[in-house]
Amino acid sequence: MKSPMRPVDDDARTLARGLIDAARFAGLAYRDPDSGSPMISRIALVAGPEGLPLSLVSDLSHHSAALTHDPVCALLIGEPTGKGDPLTHPRLSLRAEASFVRHGDADHAALAQAFLSKQPKAKLYIGFADFALVRFAPLGAHLNGGFGKAYVLDADDLEVPVR
Amino acid sequence: MKSPMRPVDDDARTLARGLIDAARFAGLAYRDPDSGSPMISRIALVAGPEGLPLSLVSDLSHHSAALTHDPVCALLIGEPTGKGDPLTHPRLSLRAEASFVRHGDADHAALAQAFLSKQPKAKLYIGFADFALVRFAPLGAHLNGGFGKAYVLDADDLEVPVR
Repeated sequence: MKSPMRPVDDDARTLARGLIDAARFAGLAYRDPDSGSPMISRIALVAGPEGLPLSLVSDLSHHSAALTHDPVCALLIGEPTGKGDPLTHPRLSLRAEASFVRHGDADHAALAQAFLSKQPKAKLYIGFADFALVRFAPLGAHLNGGFGKAYVLDADDLEVPVR
Repeated sequence: MKSPMRPVDDDARTLARGLIDAARFAGLAYRDPDSGSPMISRIALVAGPEGLPLSLVSDLSHHSAALTHDPVCALLIGEPTGKGDPLTHPRLSLRAEASFVRHGDADHAALAQAFLSKQPKAKLYIGFADFALVRFAPLGAHLNGGFGKAYVLDADDLEVPVR
């Protein structure tokens, strides 16, 4: 079978970084702890202080319990807004490992501040005991820039730019 | 832990059906055939002639190969468009089993016509040998109508309305 993949170049890396930096939410694929079957949710998502995806989740959610059990997951970043064919809108399918940062953990205050700088309305509930921050460490990614523009990226391609 | 779920009522069923009927694309969670890890893609999606979700995929895609290997998957239906908090936008997380309908299969012509009635631009490639239709049979669903409005639905709650 002919591979539809293009070699990764700086344009692809810049596009992928830009999708993470612009994100305010994402699709999350995770494994059901009981059946192992794939599950999917929408979560809030921003680029955290290291440029890595950062979310805020409730312990009452299915995905929070599932990620605690098995942190390997995938994020769909770059959702279409407005008009045009959604399948031509660039999107990043990012495989990642989730880690929780809870109230009282050393990094919580700094990460909470970074999250609120991009999701200010979350100040209403970020202090609740059942809400935790989740950091996603990239394992690899598939970038689709529209029909015929597909790339396989590794974690290094998503490395944090100097800011 | 207090359950955040509400009892399923006709309003919830109508909201879920409406999300499927309005869909033109969706997030797809599936299992990587090699590692078993969760993966995620964006796919085209419409309500097919029986009201069930229907997609058109290329054999060159990761998700096509994966669903052929393991058809159990999940769809995120009801993506936000425009303004407002994306997490208050209603969405349906639908667990499903995928089945392929290929060129030459008995149902292909009727399903292709139904797909094209909602995705007319796909006429450019629906005839290509490497494109197949995919039907999704619902296994169950989680409906989130915004903060505090969550429901667990079974397949019967998504049954096809009389049209």
